[in-house]
Amino acid sequence: MQVGYWAGRRVFVTGASGFLGSHLVRRLVGLGGHVFAFLRPASETQRIADVIDRVTLVEGDLFDVKSLERGVAVARPELVYHLAAAGVAPDCDDEQLVRVNAMGTLQLLRACAGSGLLRFVYAGSCFEYGEGSDLAESQPLAPTSVYAASKLAGHAITQAFCHRHSLPWVSLRPFTVYGPWERTSRLIPHTIFRGLKGEDVLVTPGEQERDYIFVDDVIDGFLLGGEHPAAIGRTFNLCTGQPVKVRDIVCQVLDLLDSRSRPVFGALPYRADEMFRQSGDNRLARSVLGWAARYSLLEGLRLTIEWYKGIACLGEQGGEMVRPCRE
Amino acid sequence: MQVGYWAGRRVFVTGASGFLGSHLVRRLVGLGGHVFAFLRPASETQRIADVIDRVTLVEGDLFDVKSLERGVAVARPELVYHLAAAGVAPDCDDEQLVRVNAMGTLQLLRACAGSGLLRFVYAGSCFEYGEGSDLAESQPLAPTSVYAASKLAGHAITQAFCHRHSLPWVSLRPFTVYGPWERTSRLIPHTIFRGLKGEDVLVTPGEQERDYIFVDDVIDGFLLGGEHPAAIGRTFNLCTGQPVKVRDIVCQVLDLLDSRSRPVFGALPYRADEMFRQSGDNRLARSVLGWAARYSLLEGLRLTIEWYKGIACLGEQGGEMVRPCRE
Repeated sequence: MQVGYWAGRRVFVTGASGFLGSHLVRRLVGLGGHVFAFLRPASETQRIADVIDRVTLVEGDLFDVKSLERGVAVARPELVYHLAAAGVAPDCDDEQLVRVNAMGTLQLLRACAGSGLLRFVYAGSCFEYGEGSDLAESQPLAPTSVYAASKLAGHAITQAFCHRHSLPWVSLRPFTVYGPWERTSRLIPHTIFRGLKGEDVLVTPGEQERDYIFVDDVIDGFLLGGEHPAAIGRTFNLCTGQPVKVRDIVCQVLDLLDSRSRPVFGALPYRADEMFRQSGDNRLARSVLGWAARYSLLEGLRLTIEWYKGIACLGEQGGEMVRPCRE
Repeated sequence: MQVGYWAGRRVFVTGASGFLGSHLVRRLVGLGGHVFAFLRPASETQRIADVIDRVTLVEGDLFDVKSLERGVAVARPELVYHLAAAGVAPDCDDEQLVRVNAMGTLQLLRACAGSGLLRFVYAGSCFEYGEGSDLAESQPLAPTSVYAASKLAGHAITQAFCHRHSLPWVSLRPFTVYGPWERTSRLIPHTIFRGLKGEDVLVTPGEQERDYIFVDDVIDGFLLGGEHPAAIGRTFNLCTGQPVKVRDIVCQVLDLLDSRSRPVFGALPYRADEMFRQSGDNRLARSVLGWAARYSLLEGLRLTIEWYKGIACLGEQGGEMVRPCRE
């Protein structure tokens, strides 16, 4: 990364209060960036509570075009990171997914057109690919859920709109991100909480493979995507390239906790739309951006466990944070 | 094609009054199909006037969910052909493009879920690819306009929704389609009309290459896409694979007319978002569907010219048909 690149940079972040968004905001603030967090009035801001005094909050909504225009006018951003997405909850209405992830992305882009932006960074998803191993960016996209299709739609709209309006864009596709501040109902935090209490961990048979990547590594990729000149107009996977079975993750977490909890594989059914293999190829990010994952799975899990131990006193319910995110 | 496949088939067609849609409806009716043409109350039906008595008109709108549900309930379709799209006019509002082509496709799919459909056929576009030669279906998609991105979004939503709801789907990507009933302001009809009147034809420098395909060949592909068992879950280009320069098309049309009109290349500027090369690879449709273009460019242009001569008495303005379509 370029030393000093972010100092004083005006950066507009949507989804700033989310899992990824909060980590990005914290890193940008630490690097001296001037972050404008675009948040709905109802957004919970507990994930960024520690840096909120060093962030400019901009209230608005992707569907309130005037609020977007006002937000961009106030922030005069040099970069936009678009992380806001619906979704994320498995029971989210299909119409809402398309509305937020496709139309909302278009509305944000329209507000940015002609603003002299250095870069528009779209937070995509490995779900755009559908199922597969060693998924590379050149892979045909075969989404298997409307959520995935809506994220792909947002990607395509970004690519096309930016082409048309000469806005430099980058798309990033994180795989299965874990770390502090992940919603507690997701696999790893859930296993940690159960493990700390010595309770059985009820899971699916757990044969599905995922490409787990620690959140700090993903944020490295987001920063490089924002600053590296060669990133413009391209899409990058952010993944380790190492598929790991869900059952192995559960066992590893319980081992690290030295817990007496037993994992009960098969206690829960697979999802109707379960994908059994999903792992990526990270060669493009490595070669073009010089990005590499700094954390092994073991290190990432240790850090994650330490962090959740710190909030465990709140209890699993008390520790539930903001709106639900997609597994 | 399977003999008798279409006899008595219940086929629901959106965009039935458009250029492609009207040809599809006429062919289906000719094959004995029971066509339900889903049309907005304001739709012009002149393109299907000759067969309208043999078609069931179903009034509705992609945004009126109740009208979609009612339409599907009435038609009880075995196949749906989704050709309705916004567009198509170069000055169409970006928001409208996403609303109709992405959200409208989702609404139609939702109305079809659980209806026991044999097949949902999505009419995509070569624009989904962006610029390039020999574009194959496995090519990464790089749309350069919001129209193209919105068609890609509709494709992705179709693919994902159908996967999720076990609906058999097919996507078809026609390239530059020409033939009778094309909007008269488009290149070939415009050249024919000017040529018939002996007036100069004002065009761009005309160096851009397109993959021109006669409408009847595209309809062959649409029928095969609807009936061939191996088509399910796949996407097929419908193109000749032969790039032809716009200037050569203009000259060829004027030659065939034996017109004294002069083409004035460079009289008009290229579009801001002009694509200079766009041609496809049709090997997948050939090998899987047994599809092949039956008309050479010369034959297709001759038939097109004959047809426009027949309506030339109406004058170019009088001959302007329905809403404008994208070049």
